[in-house]
Amino acid sequence: MKYFFITTFLFHAIITIVLDLDHLSHILQQDCRLNTTRLVLIGVSGGPDSLSLLDVMHRLGYPLVVAHLNHGLRAEAGEEALVVRESARVRGLGFVLEEADIAGYAREHTLSIEEAARKVRYQFLFEQARKCKAQAIAVAHTADDQIETVLMHMLRGAGLSGLKGMNFHFQPNPWDSEIALVRPLLGIFRDEILSYCSERNLSPVFDRSNLDTTYFRNRIRNELIPLLLTYNAGIKSNLWHMSQILAGDDQVLETYTRIAWRGCCLEQSDQGVALEINNLITQPMGIQQRLIRLAISILRPGLRDIDYAGVGKVLEFIQRAKRNAHWDLADGLSLFREGDALWIANWESELPAGNAPQIPNITINIAIPGFIDLPGGWHIQAERVAVDHDAIDQVVNNPDPNQAWIDNSQDIRELIIRSSQPGDRFLPFGLDGHSVKLSDYFINVKVPRRLRSNWPLICVGDEVVWIPGYRISHPFRLTPSSTRAVYLRLIKEH
Amino acid sequence: MKYFFITTFLFHAIITIVLDLDHLSHILQQDCRLNTTRLVLIGVSGGPDSLSLLDVMHRLGYPLVVAHLNHGLRAEAGEEALVVRESARVRGLGFVLEEADIAGYAREHTLSIEEAARKVRYQFLFEQARKCKAQAIAVAHTADDQIETVLMHMLRGAGLSGLKGMNFHFQPNPWDSEIALVRPLLGIFRDEILSYCSERNLSPVFDRSNLDTTYFRNRIRNELIPLLLTYNAGIKSNLWHMSQILAGDDQVLETYTRIAWRGCCLEQSDQGVALEINNLITQPMGIQQRLIRLAISILRPGLRDIDYAGVGKVLEFIQRAKRNAHWDLADGLSLFREGDALWIANWESELPAGNAPQIPNITINIAIPGFIDLPGGWHIQAERVAVDHDAIDQVVNNPDPNQAWIDNSQDIRELIIRSSQPGDRFLPFGLDGHSVKLSDYFINVKVPRRLRSNWPLICVGDEVVWIPGYRISHPFRLTPSSTRAVYLRLIKEH
Repeated sequence: MKYFFITTFLFHAIITIVLDLDHLSHILQQDCRLNTTRLVLIGVSGGPDSLSLLDVMHRLGYPLVVAHLNHGLRAEAGEEALVVRESARVRGLGFVLEEADIAGYAREHTLSIEEAARKVRYQFLFEQARKCKAQAIAVAHTADDQIETVLMHMLRGAGLSGLKGMNFHFQPNPWDSEIALVRPLLGIFRDEILSYCSERNLSPVFDRSNLDTTYFRNRIRNELIPLLLTYNAGIKSNLWHMSQILAGDDQVLETYTRIAWRGCCLEQSDQGVALEINNLITQPMGIQQRLIRLAISILRPGLRDIDYAGVGKVLEFIQRAKRNAHWDLADGLSLFREGDALWIANWESELPAGNAPQIPNITINIAIPGFIDLPGGWHIQAERVAVDHDAIDQVVNNPDPNQAWIDNSQDIRELIIRSSQPGDRFLPFGLDGHSVKLSDYFINVKVPRRLRSNWPLICVGDEVVWIPGYRISHPFRLTPSSTRAVYLRLIKEH
Repeated sequence: MKYFFITTFLFHAIITIVLDLDHLSHILQQDCRLNTTRLVLIGVSGGPDSLSLLDVMHRLGYPLVVAHLNHGLRAEAGEEALVVRESARVRGLGFVLEEADIAGYAREHTLSIEEAARKVRYQFLFEQARKCKAQAIAVAHTADDQIETVLMHMLRGAGLSGLKGMNFHFQPNPWDSEIALVRPLLGIFRDEILSYCSERNLSPVFDRSNLDTTYFRNRIRNELIPLLLTYNAGIKSNLWHMSQILAGDDQVLETYTRIAWRGCCLEQSDQGVALEINNLITQPMGIQQRLIRLAISILRPGLRDIDYAGVGKVLEFIQRAKRNAHWDLADGLSLFREGDALWIANWESELPAGNAPQIPNITINIAIPGFIDLPGGWHIQAERVAVDHDAIDQVVNNPDPNQAWIDNSQDIRELIIRSSQPGDRFLPFGLDGHSVKLSDYFINVKVPRRLRSNWPLICVGDEVVWIPGYRISHPFRLTPSSTRAVYLRLIKEH
């Protein structure tokens, strides 16, 4: 009896040290943001981590569906599936199984086995989670996985977003915007989990491929971390705490970057992003770097890290490139400038022109009165009007470049609208002298180069009489002797 | 002739690859913020790094004074001093030498040899820089030193402020607020420096202690980095770039933390820091952590890292501690709460009371009229006044707790001012019933505990008639039958 008492006491003491259920309950609610009223889909490989997570969450009253993917990579895979199925059955839980040909998928998509397994596994889990309307998917990454991840990112030279490692709660994630991916064991080291398994008589399957150091992660686990422990016996908990501190830092910086983005981004599409240079360069350097990385990641979501050299090249372009320079950035992206806008884009010619009037390489006649549609919701309108000499000053000096009055003493029958031609010249209103090359005028008034060749021109015969958005031709201005005018408007639908 | 041409060409080609003077000129101006008009003190050990830096800066026209500290640790130290002296002489530069007993200093201050050498060296350099009015001190840390530093911090589990490594330009620094410490070679790897030495026929002294892996840094250099190179051949440049990215991130976070500090810090002295809890908890978690670390670093500037556990304990205190809880934090600091203030302080009793009236444990009589000084620029004033019954409502309901009117029908001759005594009771104005224990009253109105025992009380005989800053005693209130009053004021000098 006395012996029994001591055993019980020790048992409780060990349980408390090993895996504190109260603590995990707190983590599931607070850090993973789970509730016990809705289903959680749990990914179980059959290893000690996922079997322990399954056992803990079941004991804490979470309604679970157990999901297992047979990777088809090892002979013992079928046995693992049976172990997982049994662990669900004895707890009265639902079980879903899928068999995948990871090796085939890897060959087909030229991925490493690890990458292919990861991709297929998450596709499977999220598909199942959607089917059973789960609130979240729980996976059993541990504190050891976390520090291995941190070290892998460090070896790649990642910034904060890599060094912070994984999150307890990951939402939105690349697989689903609604269903969170949660990692309740992220703060628990493997030693504690193994003790828990033996305390609870769980019988995990040990994946022998973990011992194979040809996998990068396993080399970190079995070679690098043991070496680092000889430098600092507390390295594992140090790296774990480092990741948590950096996660907090990264979140703050992401928030400020999103705020800065709103003030700095002028245009954004899948073809290109325009950033306002004067805004960008007044940001602190750390935010400048993040804005540039964000712009690149919008255009190239696949690039896992926007490397230091790429960001540096953009900063160098801003500082040193000539006005008309085009620089190649990386992965088919190029850099150029339009006025105060820095463009990071696929190709200049493919950029959206929705914010500017453009006309294809055709010639269109406009009757007066007349109305013509241009691409992108732009229109040109022409009307005959009498000249009100009381208001002629206001009309002549009208400050709105999207409307114009031209003299109609010669009774213009028809206007022509077309894009520019080689040899076009223009005599801007107010410049009573020689005409200038239209191409030079476009440069002077900073029409973006990519928009010049298709900018609409209003002509009478061969002569350009109005550049919508800019000026009328000097000889066509209203004078005190004008009695009739053509009123022109450039209109954008909203 | 042809041969000579080829040699010259190759020579230039190698120089360009090895150490680009234009690039270094740019770094000296932009990153190190140096100009060629004022002296720079350069610390030269005689090794390849510092001899190269000396040579480069001299060639680029920087006026230099060469400083060398003989650490007295190795037999060849005297020879090194001669090499450095000669390198200054041939360039016509000033030279200062000091001999130090680093081993003795280390024993005396219980420091490691490395720490002692670092401390004595910087003291020497900054002393000399002040003497010759140098704009800055240049030291020859390289890109290799940078990544070793980053890895050392990682092994310690440091946050961003450690992982970002060293700066090209460090000002203000712990040694001087005016004179910058600059590191022009921070982006140059040692290989390039060795090539430069041989190209320029520099004859550096090789410090054999670099090969001794009993020093932590040398172990990282000679053991850890070679291993990491087998994981990723680009690890050195990756870690270097990581440090630069993290430096930008850290600077942004420091800026936002300083801004948040202004809104969050209520009081600050070398005894304690008070943070406004409601402000603190609305900050993003990364900023909360930094505010707490900043508060601790103000009180304990010596603590190199405020560890994760310390910050976590403060956050836990805010969430979970009972109102009157006192928690030990670390290194003699404790945590407690006063109203909405979180105090991180040496000891409650030692906190400044400058913002509150306090009286030592003495009893003082005040004549009426009378005026008495309290510590910290506080005063109590008493006057006899007639009661103006037209204004009695305003007086009775006066909203300023720093003034009071008490009934003087009984012609009070004298007031007593004293601190509280065990057994004191009080009947607050408006509470027409039983008196309460003064200690309970203090708790109810949230007088900070540390201020209670010396809070000044105005008494008539044994009876407390006014608690300055709070209320008068109900029996001493003015009534419609009052004709005479004593007017009391609590005044704080500005």
